[in-house]
Amino acid sequence: MHLIDNLQYANWSEKIFRQMREGGVDAVHVTIAYHEMFRETVANFEQWNRWFERHPDLIVQARTGDDVRQAKRDGRTAIIFGFQNPSPIEDDIGLVEICHTLGARFMQLSYNNQSLLATGCYEAEDPGITRMGKQVIKEMNRVGLVVDMSHSADRSTLEAMEISERPIAITHANPSFWHPALRNKSDDVLKALAASGGMLGFSMYPHHLKDKTACTLNSFCEMIARTADLMGVGAIGLGSDLCQDQPDSIVEWMRVGRWSKEIDYGEGSASDAGFPPMPDWFQDNRDFGNIATGLRAVGFSDEETAGVMGENWLRFYDDSFGAQ
Amino acid sequence: MHLIDNLQYANWSEKIFRQMREGGVDAVHVTIAYHEMFRETVANFEQWNRWFERHPDLIVQARTGDDVRQAKRDGRTAIIFGFQNPSPIEDDIGLVEICHTLGARFMQLSYNNQSLLATGCYEAEDPGITRMGKQVIKEMNRVGLVVDMSHSADRSTLEAMEISERPIAITHANPSFWHPALRNKSDDVLKALAASGGMLGFSMYPHHLKDKTACTLNSFCEMIARTADLMGVGAIGLGSDLCQDQPDSIVEWMRVGRWSKEIDYGEGSASDAGFPPMPDWFQDNRDFGNIATGLRAVGFSDEETAGVMGENWLRFYDDSFGAQ
Repeated sequence: MHLIDNLQYANWSEKIFRQMREGGVDAVHVTIAYHEMFRETVANFEQWNRWFERHPDLIVQARTGDDVRQAKRDGRTAIIFGFQNPSPIEDDIGLVEICHTLGARFMQLSYNNQSLLATGCYEAEDPGITRMGKQVIKEMNRVGLVVDMSHSADRSTLEAMEISERPIAITHANPSFWHPALRNKSDDVLKALAASGGMLGFSMYPHHLKDKTACTLNSFCEMIARTADLMGVGAIGLGSDLCQDQPDSIVEWMRVGRWSKEIDYGEGSASDAGFPPMPDWFQDNRDFGNIATGLRAVGFSDEETAGVMGENWLRFYDDSFGAQ
Repeated sequence: MHLIDNLQYANWSEKIFRQMREGGVDAVHVTIAYHEMFRETVANFEQWNRWFERHPDLIVQARTGDDVRQAKRDGRTAIIFGFQNPSPIEDDIGLVEICHTLGARFMQLSYNNQSLLATGCYEAEDPGITRMGKQVIKEMNRVGLVVDMSHSADRSTLEAMEISERPIAITHANPSFWHPALRNKSDDVLKALAASGGMLGFSMYPHHLKDKTACTLNSFCEMIARTADLMGVGAIGLGSDLCQDQPDSIVEWMRVGRWSKEIDYGEGSASDAGFPPMPDWFQDNRDFGNIATGLRAVGFSDEETAGVMGENWLRFYDDSFGAQ
């Protein structure tokens, strides 16, 4: 079995890389841009290159599903790059291929707000995929950069599925039938996602969980079972949204970037502005075993559990990361 | 035999790509930056991506010697990227690996002037490789980006050979014993280059030729024979410096970039400011056969001719383009 977490944004350190190895994590899709423009994103690629050079025994960059398999054989954790916003491509469609060449494999078309491409989930109006958005989806399809609609609004998300010739992903979100957060997704979106061959990654970020930090492992796994009934057991995986060791200034950056001079609390509130504590059954990369145990406890077979824990993402990588 | 031209800077067009095929040119090292900073260089990578997408029957990007072999089997011309100045890496050593990942395989440490790394051949003083230069050479060695000293001053060039743990190149220049232009290279430099496993590419740019545009094919090939005696027949190849179809504004850009408000004529003069006409035996990519014929006429064996026409560069690519 390959253990894959399809979204993290930790304050990376040797400690965390060692925890990944201890937890047997074979691959992690890491966010390397929230609001960064191209040149700033390149500096983030550079920072990762330095980590790869310093910790070749722990981590290695992956560009394909086979790179993940090789990393597992070598006892390393494969790192796959992604953007939570299209800001790295600026207004330049040629940067889609450049970023793919540098290793980007997921890009959200919008992050909470309206972007040049699509609408974010906190906007009052969602006019759908823009003119540039249609062109960029086509280019992302061509080179093998996956459309991610985790923070996008529903109309834009449904249109992205229709326009994209290749399956898209919602890398980190949960169903709103379980917890009706603005960031969680409706049955309609999830059914359309599955019907188009796409993948959902379940988030362990407390604002996406029923009862937040107090959410039980059993409740989380029951939700996964209900989602499997809705979408099929092959269309789901993990996207923990783990932001380990980040100071609260980072959640402010994620929410406000440079787009506002006023504070915006996003999924939090003035009285609960920082990173919420993670649930006790998922503190860091060493805790994925709890989830596998929880899945079996709610009735998933070993093979289904392996699918949710990583094999489904691995198959999706095989189909999605190469040229069209 | 593989036919390789290790330096061109044409005004690229489908016409020229078709001439490459007609001339049986298997690989060309193309300059994609003279004075461009990183973001501008990325736009040049993007422009090439568009050409690769539009002309997949004619050209393909190459990152390794094996990519050149595959291109030949597929009947396409392999394109290898290079910079004539270190301006694309700005003051950021992390950009060395980023540029290599995007496909850069040669980088000059200086272009005529002092750079952050080394001294150019038109400076009055040459203090040698700088502090940053030493660090960047080490990083270029690590990732497989070849040090090119074509436009550098002698002390910097000799120091680069000493500091570099991998062979370097002078991609486009001729020996000064034949034509004492500032851009051509002394016996000392050429002997040290060969002794360190490096390569020289012979230029057909008229300012580097004895008798300039009137230079005869026989004189050019006799010069190659004398250089083979000096360096060994395995250390030499072609680097035509062909600037086909470029307007004279481009030679001004090459010479002046943005570093001066005054005109600088470089190898030309006020009365001869533009691109000089190429010699009649080398007008474009269809004329490499003349050189092969000329080499045999001055006594090169078929195998030696094949070496000069491309096999020597191909072996150098095999040894130079991968990680250390």
